[in-house]
Amino acid sequence: MFNIKDRSITVFAPASVANVGPGFDILGFAINGLGDTITLTHRDDEQYVIESVGADLPLEPANNVATVALRSFCDHVGHSGGFDIRIEKNFEPGSGLGSSASSAAGAVYAANELLQAGLSKEALVTFALDGEEVASKNRHADNIAPCMLGGFVGVTSCDPFKAFSVPYPNDLKVLVIFPDVVIKTAEARQILPQTIDLGTGINQAANMAGLVTGLIRNDYALISDSLQDEFAEPFRKKLIPLYDEVKAKALAKGSMGISISGSGPAMFSFFRASTDTSELQQELKALYKQANIGVVFHESGINHKGAELLNDKL
Amino acid sequence: MFNIKDRSITVFAPASVANVGPGFDILGFAINGLGDTITLTHRDDEQYVIESVGADLPLEPANNVATVALRSFCDHVGHSGGFDIRIEKNFEPGSGLGSSASSAAGAVYAANELLQAGLSKEALVTFALDGEEVASKNRHADNIAPCMLGGFVGVTSCDPFKAFSVPYPNDLKVLVIFPDVVIKTAEARQILPQTIDLGTGINQAANMAGLVTGLIRNDYALISDSLQDEFAEPFRKKLIPLYDEVKAKALAKGSMGISISGSGPAMFSFFRASTDTSELQQELKALYKQANIGVVFHESGINHKGAELLNDKL
Repeated sequence: MFNIKDRSITVFAPASVANVGPGFDILGFAINGLGDTITLTHRDDEQYVIESVGADLPLEPANNVATVALRSFCDHVGHSGGFDIRIEKNFEPGSGLGSSASSAAGAVYAANELLQAGLSKEALVTFALDGEEVASKNRHADNIAPCMLGGFVGVTSCDPFKAFSVPYPNDLKVLVIFPDVVIKTAEARQILPQTIDLGTGINQAANMAGLVTGLIRNDYALISDSLQDEFAEPFRKKLIPLYDEVKAKALAKGSMGISISGSGPAMFSFFRASTDTSELQQELKALYKQANIGVVFHESGINHKGAELLNDKL
Repeated sequence: MFNIKDRSITVFAPASVANVGPGFDILGFAINGLGDTITLTHRDDEQYVIESVGADLPLEPANNVATVALRSFCDHVGHSGGFDIRIEKNFEPGSGLGSSASSAAGAVYAANELLQAGLSKEALVTFALDGEEVASKNRHADNIAPCMLGGFVGVTSCDPFKAFSVPYPNDLKVLVIFPDVVIKTAEARQILPQTIDLGTGINQAANMAGLVTGLIRNDYALISDSLQDEFAEPFRKKLIPLYDEVKAKALAKGSMGISISGSGPAMFSFFRASTDTSELQQELKALYKQANIGVVFHESGINHKGAELLNDKL
């Protein structure tokens, strides 16, 4: 069953935003329009051969998140054959949008389809995590889970993987703001305190409860009140030029709330679908131009599908 | 308008459970069958005269939560007249069920009705908090808010008061377990650490998100997985004899989860309405009997009304 040759499959795995405000290390969501398009093709040998398009990914299988995830999955299902793995990425790795998660989740999802292994998306997350771990040196699923499952996903445990989907308003959209600066994930981790005040912990949990309730109940005011992160934002925002200014401008232009995507430098801001963000984008461009920093934007709805099959060339 | 004499009103303000698992200092809910019945009657003078029935409450107005709350409310609406305040309590103060909150919320709710002041329940919470502060030396609304509003309420801020209602499954019931021991609230506060690990804070927020999502979506497994408190329970459970044994027995008999009500000694345990808890109660009675400690139980549904008018003797 796992030895069908001359067969390939193409899937799409969306980019995702993790650390959604108070949902630091917990809550993520998938976005439309950005992500990895992955084509997996059987080979006659047992090699994993990576082709990277649109980004400069590691081509050594032991260092590439997609192939590490793929190996973990294939070991589990007992498939020893090789693959050509074409990874086409339409956003920059290191931007804060879960690039490694898209590759890992996409590769595993593609293999499950190609091999007709029949595992659920939830079951696939564990193998994708094995890949993610290579990239981030940290086993966390708040990018992998929404990338695989779509929508907003809260993760309560990685080993074993436990997560829950959080419904959200139909007319929620996100503006992702990418200032052209580099943040090293290791530095973004080190900058966090190891201990916090009990009161800070209580505030974070309260905002987490409010954010989830607001999302499920379409309560925009509650989402807005609750999109506050006291664990990471106060420290990590120092790594993002003009963060406070961007936040103030977004909130003044109808943003429901804004916070750091992953470990940055990208920021995400929620809006009602009917809100026009073009003036805000002009203002932010001007703001960053004064500082000689480039900035680009991505505006989209929430991706509710997660990893999906694009075509199945039998 | 505020000078109508010879008029009295009777209200009921339910008991409540605060510190609902990961909702330490955040989430509370009101319960049926226990609470304060408060009758407020106009006096010809400006005195506040307290009559306490069923409990030994302070009769000095400056030390009684009901009259302090009442004074705060009357100052706000500009009413200087006195009242006879009859407080009939059908549960023990100090049990962990928000006794002072029932008195404070009930008194303010009664005065708003008697004086036809027309404030919303949400607006009344602030005055009730002034009373609660006398009892607990701490301004927190996680008992006051559900007592006033009914159902499950999450509190994100006391000054100004900000809270949100959390829908819950229709067939959720609670078993409250009261071992006959005394816990001083001050000791229960002091036993808590002032700082926590960042990881503990993340776990608490994750469980908070899961609990709220589970409640809103009738996801009993998620409620069960998420009803875990890493902030207070590990420390406060030491003050409650046989806590771990009670928890294990409850979980073995169909409990969705169990934690400490307020600062204890009461414990609350969630069940589906269809689950018979009589065997569990027998086992817990036997357990505490071996330790020469009395135990009583209260089983009820969630109170969805909050403070309510019982009669209006015009």
